[in-house]
Amino acid sequence: MPYRAPVDEFRFLYAHVVDLAALAGTERFAEATPETVEAILTEAGRLCEEVLAPTRRAGDTDPARLENGVTRTSEGFDAAYGAIAEGGWVAISADPEHGGMGLPMALTTAVNDMVSSANLALQLNPMLTQGQIDALEAHASDELKALYLPKLISGEWTGTMNLTEPQAGSDVGALRTKAEPNGDGTYAITGQKIYITWGDHDLTPNICHLVLARLPDAAPGTKGISLFMVPKYLPTEDGTPGPFNNVRTVSLEEKMGIHGSPTAVLDYDRSTGWLVGPENGGMKAMFTMMNNARLGVGAQGIGVAEGAFQHALAYAMDRRQGASKVENATGSIVDHADVRRMLTTMKADIFAARAIALMCAVALDRARSGGGEDWAARAAFLTPIAKTFGTETGMAVADMGIQVHGGMGYVEETGAAQFLRDVRVTAIYEGTNGIQAMDLVARKMADGGEAAFAMLDEIESFAETARERMPDLAAPVWEAAETLRETVEWLVAQDDLNARFAGSVPFLMGFARVLGGHAHLMAAMADPEGPRARLARFYITRLLPQHAGHLAHARAGAEDLYAVSPDDLAA
Amino acid sequence: MPYRAPVDEFRFLYAHVVDLAALAGTERFAEATPETVEAILTEAGRLCEEVLAPTRRAGDTDPARLENGVTRTSEGFDAAYGAIAEGGWVAISADPEHGGMGLPMALTTAVNDMVSSANLALQLNPMLTQGQIDALEAHASDELKALYLPKLISGEWTGTMNLTEPQAGSDVGALRTKAEPNGDGTYAITGQKIYITWGDHDLTPNICHLVLARLPDAAPGTKGISLFMVPKYLPTEDGTPGPFNNVRTVSLEEKMGIHGSPTAVLDYDRSTGWLVGPENGGMKAMFTMMNNARLGVGAQGIGVAEGAFQHALAYAMDRRQGASKVENATGSIVDHADVRRMLTTMKADIFAARAIALMCAVALDRARSGGGEDWAARAAFLTPIAKTFGTETGMAVADMGIQVHGGMGYVEETGAAQFLRDVRVTAIYEGTNGIQAMDLVARKMADGGEAAFAMLDEIESFAETARERMPDLAAPVWEAAETLRETVEWLVAQDDLNARFAGSVPFLMGFARVLGGHAHLMAAMADPEGPRARLARFYITRLLPQHAGHLAHARAGAEDLYAVSPDDLAA
Repeated sequence: MPYRAPVDEFRFLYAHVVDLAALAGTERFAEATPETVEAILTEAGRLCEEVLAPTRRAGDTDPARLENGVTRTSEGFDAAYGAIAEGGWVAISADPEHGGMGLPMALTTAVNDMVSSANLALQLNPMLTQGQIDALEAHASDELKALYLPKLISGEWTGTMNLTEPQAGSDVGALRTKAEPNGDGTYAITGQKIYITWGDHDLTPNICHLVLARLPDAAPGTKGISLFMVPKYLPTEDGTPGPFNNVRTVSLEEKMGIHGSPTAVLDYDRSTGWLVGPENGGMKAMFTMMNNARLGVGAQGIGVAEGAFQHALAYAMDRRQGASKVENATGSIVDHADVRRMLTTMKADIFAARAIALMCAVALDRARSGGGEDWAARAAFLTPIAKTFGTETGMAVADMGIQVHGGMGYVEETGAAQFLRDVRVTAIYEGTNGIQAMDLVARKMADGGEAAFAMLDEIESFAETARERMPDLAAPVWEAAETLRETVEWLVAQDDLNARFAGSVPFLMGFARVLGGHAHLMAAMADPEGPRARLARFYITRLLPQHAGHLAHARAGAEDLYAVSPDDLAA
Repeated sequence: MPYRAPVDEFRFLYAHVVDLAALAGTERFAEATPETVEAILTEAGRLCEEVLAPTRRAGDTDPARLENGVTRTSEGFDAAYGAIAEGGWVAISADPEHGGMGLPMALTTAVNDMVSSANLALQLNPMLTQGQIDALEAHASDELKALYLPKLISGEWTGTMNLTEPQAGSDVGALRTKAEPNGDGTYAITGQKIYITWGDHDLTPNICHLVLARLPDAAPGTKGISLFMVPKYLPTEDGTPGPFNNVRTVSLEEKMGIHGSPTAVLDYDRSTGWLVGPENGGMKAMFTMMNNARLGVGAQGIGVAEGAFQHALAYAMDRRQGASKVENATGSIVDHADVRRMLTTMKADIFAARAIALMCAVALDRARSGGGEDWAARAAFLTPIAKTFGTETGMAVADMGIQVHGGMGYVEETGAAQFLRDVRVTAIYEGTNGIQAMDLVARKMADGGEAAFAMLDEIESFAETARERMPDLAAPVWEAAETLRETVEWLVAQDDLNARFAGSVPFLMGFARVLGGHAHLMAAMADPEGPRARLARFYITRLLPQHAGHLAHARAGAEDLYAVSPDDLAA
């Protein structure tokens, strides 16, 4: 069941939901002309359909493996990665000064989405490199930029992110890796890092690790963390990889999915590193890297959802079983109401999640092209929502994809299970979805909810405009936004952060449901007699009502939750 | 993280939610004295904790395999199965006439739940045998009963269910396996069956297959299907296994989980079979087998949920990371609001699902012990709910269990992922959850909703009684029941079955949410100052509100759903 890139859906979203054209009017993104956008979408789509998607199964059945200290990658990954790098797809948003194309994140997000559908395990590799490029562009010295950025942007070398240590997962402040000054401006890095995605591989001649570590006498916790560039091989004068830098791959994890992505335990033993950003300023640099990566992970979830959806739809259209009396019957199981319900839910939620991710990306682009603080605040606010709703949609859609297949879905040969096993990690890495939700209700609402209210004003205002032509769709969206507004008001009034945290994931999901309603309403208004309006009606009538349950949970506070004690749980 | 059998929870449910004592007052279940119940719970609990649970991991890492035509089972399964059989645990509800204990399904359901926590892959084996025993007790000739029942009840032989064929999944009527009379009262069975759980293994000297097949000139569809007993080895005069009966294992499926359970493709080539029940009466016999198996599968979901919950709780209590300012802080991640939310959700939903399964089991027992048609109707009504909500809870809880573990949850070594991979099949087999929901809104509401309304009367009446002492818990349950009543009224008024089917899964989930609220309210009333009331408050305040979203979907009808055409989906 070959993958077909959803290029039309991106075109539609750019035109009717997120106003990509406005970006081309800015100096920064003047290159993003309609012609360029079209070329990017169709060329990336073709790459994914023809070159990358055929390698997805091997990324499951032929896992990356460590052989005598050398990490070997899955069958076909070498050529597929080569096509990504040679096509210039690693970092189309990167700075043109170092070889990037300077295109909007709105385009990168579409590319990440499509590449993730085609092969999630492989897509992680350029996505990590993208994060590293962002961090270097924002924080590295000119020397480091000049040396590393061209290699990373061209895909000649790849980048990784080294945060986690065995004793410190989500609690980055507890890390122990040491960085001792060598006296020549470099540092000796010593320690062990775990869960390093594409931490080692045989696709490129060098791998660039950004490593969080502590200087001698650094403050405890997150305030005493610095960031270092530690290449696997030390670059020589002419920029080619030279001596081994004592970055040893201890082992690869055996994971539930993304078997084609080597997840390494790396051991640094007085490996040479260069400081990125100021001493003890590692957390800030890391957040640059992670924030963009979070949107990227949201796109991964959506991409896998798309892949799983297409896979399930093709199966269902092909499977003839029983008969269902419906208009325009296909004779396949798509005629059965519950199969149709699952497939339509998948399609409608993918659209909602994709719209949210693009709203976030465009806000980032607006902020970067001189749009001001409001756009930056919106981007910051939407990032955890895009990450969490994108990945939750990925999991839910992949799960429904298995269910559409019936017994065949549980047999690995079909390939349906791979989507779920692969996408499951996206709810965990780059900050678990629970951490995203905490970020949303605390840091991202530390402004008293301003960014949230601005978004709600826009949703309600659009619903009011839409009310005349589509009252039955506009009214529920407006009402849901009002319930959400009341919930935001309740949340920002809570000084006890635990009262916000206790229902933070349901709050985030409720917010996403309403944003999805908004996006579907915009789509329906743009295509009032067409398939977009029909899908919007399905979403608004059947899926949007879930917001009420989520928001009731969000407003329940912490007291009743903590009343159930650990002893009660263990009873 | 050793499994601890939730014996206290069963005691509590029997005493305060489902009134097990009333059963002991009937002639049929006079043996189910408090002493017997206590002995069953504690002995089964001990078996699961000490003997079965230690074999669970091997059932994942050491899959069943086919070697030169012989199916080899996972390390330790032989001894574990032996302990189940020798302890008399295969069929405690079976007829005492053939060696059973004649105990209520309410007890079997608790045992199935615990054994599934300990080792789902292995539990499938006795569960399938239970289904076969039910079918034989209800439909087989006295000769067949006398020969097979003692062997099956003792666990000396095991039983399987052969429905599915390559071209016919959920559509059983499309099957093609032939049964030709041999002239001596036996039949020659020829055809291929797929997805045969424990279809072959090396644990017992014989395996008894119940096979659906067509007699020559049988009517097409489900009306022309008959049921046959086809043993792997033909029993000799003295009842020991004799000549091979041409039941060949073609292959074993490579599945997402339950690797320890061999799922076979079986080839029958003029294998000798004996008719069970009348000619062309196979569907009825199969429904006997499947109906009870459906409740059993619900218990499997709950059991895996319990295992995943205990695993996650133990991890969370042990994991020290970050600090959260809460009363009675443990210093572990259990103090974090979102971790606490996940664990409490898991615990509360397990309780709800378990209560529903036991309500169904007790209704079955009441019907069998002379309680009359109303109990039979209730059992029939609750069966698809118990199956679907039990298995959906299994999946949701196992998924949250991974999330509680963070990155460790995605690494197979931790064991958290196994619960999700294992339990995923339970939503598919014995009739997918979509088929359960269709059964609920069509066959099980063909009585005009009588069984549903009787259940709702009981829920509302209890909520009215509880209103005085616990108004803030009783009122939301009563109101949810009213919304559900309106939805049932709407559904039974729909003559177009597709209007019912279009929201049938959400309807089922909404019904389960309300039943769960009822069970939690009963628990709170029985333990008003204790942990049961605190958990009930969490459920009723935070999880029960989900019913509104489900029921809005359930009432949306089919028109808007079918408006989204297959072409729209493929667009």
